[in-house]
Amino acid sequence: MGMTMTQKILADHAGLKSVKAGEFIEANLDLVLGNDITTPVAITEFNKMSFDKVFDKKKIAIVPDHFTPSKDIKSAQQCKCVREFAYDKKIENYFEIGEMGIEHALIPEKGLVVPGDVVIGADSHTCTYGALGAFSTGIGSTDMAAGMATGKCWFKVPGALKFVLSGKLNKWVSGKDVILHIIGMIGVDGALYKSMEFVGEGLKNLSIDDRFTIANMAIEAGGKNGIFMVDDITLDYVKEHSTKEYKIYAPDEDAQYDEVYEIDLSSIRPTVSFPHLPDNTRTIDEVGDVKIDQVVIGSCTNGRISDLRKAAKILKGKKVNKKVRTIIFPATQKIYLQALREGLIEDFIEAGAVVSTPTCGPCLGGHMGILAEGERAVATTNRNFVGRMGHPKSEVYLASPQVAAASALTGKITNPEEIE
Amino acid sequence: MGMTMTQKILADHAGLKSVKAGEFIEANLDLVLGNDITTPVAITEFNKMSFDKVFDKKKIAIVPDHFTPSKDIKSAQQCKCVREFAYDKKIENYFEIGEMGIEHALIPEKGLVVPGDVVIGADSHTCTYGALGAFSTGIGSTDMAAGMATGKCWFKVPGALKFVLSGKLNKWVSGKDVILHIIGMIGVDGALYKSMEFVGEGLKNLSIDDRFTIANMAIEAGGKNGIFMVDDITLDYVKEHSTKEYKIYAPDEDAQYDEVYEIDLSSIRPTVSFPHLPDNTRTIDEVGDVKIDQVVIGSCTNGRISDLRKAAKILKGKKVNKKVRTIIFPATQKIYLQALREGLIEDFIEAGAVVSTPTCGPCLGGHMGILAEGERAVATTNRNFVGRMGHPKSEVYLASPQVAAASALTGKITNPEEIE
Repeated sequence: MGMTMTQKILADHAGLKSVKAGEFIEANLDLVLGNDITTPVAITEFNKMSFDKVFDKKKIAIVPDHFTPSKDIKSAQQCKCVREFAYDKKIENYFEIGEMGIEHALIPEKGLVVPGDVVIGADSHTCTYGALGAFSTGIGSTDMAAGMATGKCWFKVPGALKFVLSGKLNKWVSGKDVILHIIGMIGVDGALYKSMEFVGEGLKNLSIDDRFTIANMAIEAGGKNGIFMVDDITLDYVKEHSTKEYKIYAPDEDAQYDEVYEIDLSSIRPTVSFPHLPDNTRTIDEVGDVKIDQVVIGSCTNGRISDLRKAAKILKGKKVNKKVRTIIFPATQKIYLQALREGLIEDFIEAGAVVSTPTCGPCLGGHMGILAEGERAVATTNRNFVGRMGHPKSEVYLASPQVAAASALTGKITNPEEIE
Repeated sequence: MGMTMTQKILADHAGLKSVKAGEFIEANLDLVLGNDITTPVAITEFNKMSFDKVFDKKKIAIVPDHFTPSKDIKSAQQCKCVREFAYDKKIENYFEIGEMGIEHALIPEKGLVVPGDVVIGADSHTCTYGALGAFSTGIGSTDMAAGMATGKCWFKVPGALKFVLSGKLNKWVSGKDVILHIIGMIGVDGALYKSMEFVGEGLKNLSIDDRFTIANMAIEAGGKNGIFMVDDITLDYVKEHSTKEYKIYAPDEDAQYDEVYEIDLSSIRPTVSFPHLPDNTRTIDEVGDVKIDQVVIGSCTNGRISDLRKAAKILKGKKVNKKVRTIIFPATQKIYLQALREGLIEDFIEAGAVVSTPTCGPCLGGHMGILAEGERAVATTNRNFVGRMGHPKSEVYLASPQVAAASALTGKITNPEEIE
């Protein structure tokens, strides 16, 4: 029986000729990732295991991005713990503020993931790197600890859903709308412990940033991972960012998928996830009159340069609504610098938005834009659970950078098609 | 008996021909100021007084700058409280993130203070506006409440110290070094409840930004206020920023000063306040070998455009030490935009510093750069009390932007004269 992309990668990394869904395997890891929240827990576990060194100093990445620059003493202590461990173990890919950014934007930018890799990260959105044709998935801090020590991790081989993409997105639609549309269609548990595999001739119309956004939110449909078929767009990105060897895994023709979804990209409308689940979606035509207090543009989902360009195109030369706090987070220092050189940061500031240094910030209720009781935000982030961005009685509406920017101008959820 | 500058302003605002030190008076207020920490308390008191409106919608300014963008639910709730009050009372000078900045940089920039004004603010560094020849001082939230309701405040007329400035600062020396030098000389209670009045031919060599920095830290010597004799430099600034009427008050020839200090600006060395008091000063020649973990450039003391220029001049084309987290806070959105247009933000990011949106941030241990146990920061801020920037066992070294920038490059407290 044939294998999916994910199954072929896992088989190869487990030294097996073939694997099938449901089987337990142990795979060699190409990268183990942690952040300032999850790594301290992993370090405690690592120390309990009495290992004195990590399996490979080049294959571990630690990115203190969540509550940095440190929001309080506790987060400062956590960063200190991580920093001391990284220096002690001579971990090469430890990144400090000033040279870093949000982990899931930074890791590909630094060339640390290439097609065919197996990556685990103690952060649920580690699935992002599936955009590059890698198997990558979020794990807990204990698995991170074992991964750092042994370079291996156990997996139950996932079954899979196949998404066959065709057509081309319309002007005001982007990768975020595609994944919100899909989550709305299959539900937050629609891909539970399954791979979401993206193939089809529509791929050629999806930028690498669109793919990062889509893969990033696979977990929001319950997916074990999201993964894109590698093509020239992937390889252009990989060659620009990495010198690592890569391997392309195509699904077998007789690979078994639990479901196959045909999606015509041209049919997708700007889409918004209403509170309090990502699958509570409405198209922009159905949103009604929703007044907002804050707009957040950024995060590992939508803080890349193309996202900022889309937002700036809408905000440039205009002013955000006086009652909407508009906060923009370039996802990495490199993206910030690029945006600055392209004049986007100037556009944002002139429009009355604030621009933060890269951080996960309010996405997870961390800092830099927490909501008060009764407040509503439109955010390009990935989760709108109860209290996710602050007070339990606040609300988060997930949307694309275009919808977020248009909404910042009007003070209510707005169709970007109506702005110009 | 003659009056000091401060006494003349207070007498005029109390409708009295003359006042003398120690006398209690009630003065009319030109501006009442609050922030996101102090205003909620003032609002509670205001409501207790059963006033339904403020004395003058134009003469109150509320700037939620301390924990914004909101660092947590509590700070979000405080901002919400302030915002609702401001809208309810139609306060014209309420500023939201995106249009604001750190209060003591913003208020002069918005032209809300001019020479001769009496200003109270529920923030200790309200003394900053003395740079413009105004009497301004920090008060508690209850006095803020009464001030908002009645437009009046009681004062005990302060005695005064006179600082006669001559000469010119050397290249690597700026206003921060002047005030640290003075505080080191007279002590943190050296001006207790007194006016610090700055006069002399040396004024012509002190930029308005230098004066803001000096007046800002009058409170760190215990001063009731700091105030500068108005000259063309003052008036150039005022005419550029404000259309308000102003009045210049010169001290009487026979004004009584408790002490007169003659200070030759050319003799001042780059100066650093060691932990844990601002008067624990050493010249840069005496600092020894002090390794640091973080550099903070910004705050109401040193986050103005000239401060950023000084820092950028040192950082441009170089890289900050890999182990020094370098965080730069332009004090207002306008300053941020100006710095961006001058290429300074690009210089900072290229050097490996992070640039935050304007906020008080780590200065008061708020957020955006809190220190862990045992960590040391060089900061251009105004206080280095125990635990001021985070953990009780962290340390803050107060310095100028030039010393801070030079230290960021080397990883230890460094004389900017040695960098070039």
